[in-house]
Amino acid sequence: MAKEGADMTEETEFMIDKNVGKGLENVESSGNAKEMRAVILAGFGGLNKLKVTKKAMPEPQDGEVKIRVKACGLNFLDLMVRQGTVDNPPKPPLVPGFECSGIVESLGESTKGFEIGDRVMAFVNYNAWAEVVCTPVDFVYKMPDEMTFAEAAAFSLNFVAAYMMLFEVASLREGMSVLVHSAGGGVGQAVAQLCSTVPNVTVFGIASCFKHAAIRDSVTHLFDRNVDYIQEVKKICPEGVDVVLDCLCGENTGKGLSLLKPLGTYILYGASNMVTGETKSFFSFAKSWWQVEKVNPIKLYEENKVIAGFSLLNLLFKQGRCSLVKSVMDKLLCLYEQKKIKPVVDSLWALEEVKEAMQRIHDRGNIGKLILDVEKSPTPLVTSAILKWPATARRPVKQERKKRSLRETTTARSECLSSIRPNKTHCNTHRDWTGCTDSPQRNTTTHKCVCMYVCMYACAVCMYA
Amino acid sequence: MAKEGADMTEETEFMIDKNVGKGLENVESSGNAKEMRAVILAGFGGLNKLKVTKKAMPEPQDGEVKIRVKACGLNFLDLMVRQGTVDNPPKPPLVPGFECSGIVESLGESTKGFEIGDRVMAFVNYNAWAEVVCTPVDFVYKMPDEMTFAEAAAFSLNFVAAYMMLFEVASLREGMSVLVHSAGGGVGQAVAQLCSTVPNVTVFGIASCFKHAAIRDSVTHLFDRNVDYIQEVKKICPEGVDVVLDCLCGENTGKGLSLLKPLGTYILYGASNMVTGETKSFFSFAKSWWQVEKVNPIKLYEENKVIAGFSLLNLLFKQGRCSLVKSVMDKLLCLYEQKKIKPVVDSLWALEEVKEAMQRIHDRGNIGKLILDVEKSPTPLVTSAILKWPATARRPVKQERKKRSLRETTTARSECLSSIRPNKTHCNTHRDWTGCTDSPQRNTTTHKCVCMYVCMYACAVCMYA
Repeated sequence: MAKEGADMTEETEFMIDKNVGKGLENVESSGNAKEMRAVILAGFGGLNKLKVTKKAMPEPQDGEVKIRVKACGLNFLDLMVRQGTVDNPPKPPLVPGFECSGIVESLGESTKGFEIGDRVMAFVNYNAWAEVVCTPVDFVYKMPDEMTFAEAAAFSLNFVAAYMMLFEVASLREGMSVLVHSAGGGVGQAVAQLCSTVPNVTVFGIASCFKHAAIRDSVTHLFDRNVDYIQEVKKICPEGVDVVLDCLCGENTGKGLSLLKPLGTYILYGASNMVTGETKSFFSFAKSWWQVEKVNPIKLYEENKVIAGFSLLNLLFKQGRCSLVKSVMDKLLCLYEQKKIKPVVDSLWALEEVKEAMQRIHDRGNIGKLILDVEKSPTPLVTSAILKWPATARRPVKQERKKRSLRETTTARSECLSSIRPNKTHCNTHRDWTGCTDSPQRNTTTHKCVCMYVCMYACAVCMYA
Repeated sequence: MAKEGADMTEETEFMIDKNVGKGLENVESSGNAKEMRAVILAGFGGLNKLKVTKKAMPEPQDGEVKIRVKACGLNFLDLMVRQGTVDNPPKPPLVPGFECSGIVESLGESTKGFEIGDRVMAFVNYNAWAEVVCTPVDFVYKMPDEMTFAEAAAFSLNFVAAYMMLFEVASLREGMSVLVHSAGGGVGQAVAQLCSTVPNVTVFGIASCFKHAAIRDSVTHLFDRNVDYIQEVKKICPEGVDVVLDCLCGENTGKGLSLLKPLGTYILYGASNMVTGETKSFFSFAKSWWQVEKVNPIKLYEENKVIAGFSLLNLLFKQGRCSLVKSVMDKLLCLYEQKKIKPVVDSLWALEEVKEAMQRIHDRGNIGKLILDVEKSPTPLVTSAILKWPATARRPVKQERKKRSLRETTTARSECLSSIRPNKTHCNTHRDWTGCTDSPQRNTTTHKCVCMYVCMYACAVCMYA
């Protein structure tokens, strides 16, 4: 299993290199102003289904806004789209991506409320991962002056989802307690920040232990995702918690319900447990589905409990709740301007690095949001040339890429975190650096396949935490 | 079926007479100050399991309040207790009843916050239907000066439940829509009044058509419980409603969920569909249970829906949420003092008339709350003597009792309703008076077994509506 993991990653890494090279060549040969670079998903499956290529540039229809994209958000849902585990996706080839930020380039007929040159962030029903997108005006919001494009691309989906779950569905109030899975992710960090805007809210976060040093200050109690969190939470709150936010699904649904206080609310907002390998696994899918406890309303009556599902994209694109989302966005932008919330950006990636970025989110390596920076050049080390090298010669390149990825990640992340947590203390407890060439300390007891990720990301954590 | 219904009622009526007579004799022979009258449920089953008898008077324990009871609330749940369809009831013989109002007679050691002579309303974990009850101080609330004991006994359970469902679970806000089953019942009328305290809330009420004239002004749209309400609501709100409040259960759970808007909340707060005949029906129970759609959380995720269960008694007596209920009661008493809400009392009954009262709630004949008035004398017409009369001679007595019941009902109800709806227009559409000796108009097409109840209650409706 360890070897499989290691092999898969190595293989993936070189698939990325190869395809990125191809993508680059496509782009570089382009001189047509009516064309644009875009990430294309050629078919549902693994990372090799993604490529960067040229595509005809869209023009805005009635009521649409054409945006010159600067940054796009990458979400776990994009992995599920790639694997083909979402309901009713468009037929591939398709351009993935549901959110972006950029500058208004032109407006469709009868489009009002925006002017050319406006800095905006937007939801898009697919097609976000491109140099240009068109989307209905109802999904577009003006950015505050002080917000960067990367922040804006990290803001919309995560903060709107977190806000609506906490305040529209669960009615978060003073003194309540919230448990959030994947506390280190984009939504998890948004939840933590929004909870801190309400007095005396206790946040229980669950995250991989190598992220703990980085996110410890954002939550009240932090547990490793591998421990029995039910027992840990009950030690602190024997009665349970008021809100459980679950993006994992599977057996966590039953666990979440059992952790609720009377009148507590469990909200399912994702199903990342359905993703295990690089491609869609029917076994994982079936297991997750099977483990989801079907709920008898009579049981909810006896226990005074609430169960909810929340999908922001369905709300926007299938159920037409744009005006509600707009009102939520207005409230969030107020909180941003009052410096009460600030999106956490994990790292910036070129379009051509989309596979590495996706691998990072697949490995749950990110803290905060992964951003595709449309104007960023792909790493010069990543070219198809290295594919011709022998395996032994490739290793230093791989290590160098890890170091570079580490530096970029760290810079982006520390910029964000330091601005909202300037007094963060340094981590002296994080020691799991096995395999990291930067570190003199090695934990030889750590499992190798875990180490590959722990090395790359845990070092990054240590450097700033 | 029709005949069965008619026979059952006739039989029940004489069972009541017989047992009330017995109860009365017991009481009249009592001269012991340490004894009290109470309604006793001898075993789970039909109306014949109820009797009024003497019982040792309880004394308050530490932290308890002893209340000289003036009025008790009768709820549909009491029928389910009688039939033995609730979970873990105390072993009979038991005294039913969960709420009452009265005067503080003494206090247990360390009981604070009340003085002897205080007018109070209280929740009791069984034992309410008696001349004296003791209950922990956390379940006792002072009554406003202008509130009558009957109103107080009609207030606690219905308004607290309605308020918590609307505002704690569903977060009712301006412009929302609410569908409520049994809109003519105690909770239904409380829901309607509380909705009117929020601007622009649309209330869809479902009730038997003979109640429509009486409750039409309390809701925005009113549908007969026998029509396809899904279609009717969708004609007005194609998108569905924000809140569904369901006390019926069974197939209505699936229907309620299907009627929800995105982000809408379905709340199950009762299972009256499980009660069909006079005694527990395993068939009805199994059917209701089977028809309750088990909910897959993944479906809720896709549809952005919320499903909740609410049981105020479990919240109070099993889950210890007294302080939350106290805060809700404080808000409700403010609304009462501002004359924004006022409990609707359907009718007052002596303890000895508990079976007739129960039959009325079983037949869904009530509009608002049924109250057991502890100080009310049972009707002088109801004595065991009439059992000796031949069947032909009993008929006029029965008719006279209907008329009297009608007058009392009408007086109690109109007092309540007129005070909150002084300008109510007269009903010119209600015509279903078959079998009523008061009415010159008869609808000969109406089914006989239905007529027996329709006559008695519908005429009452017509008289004031």
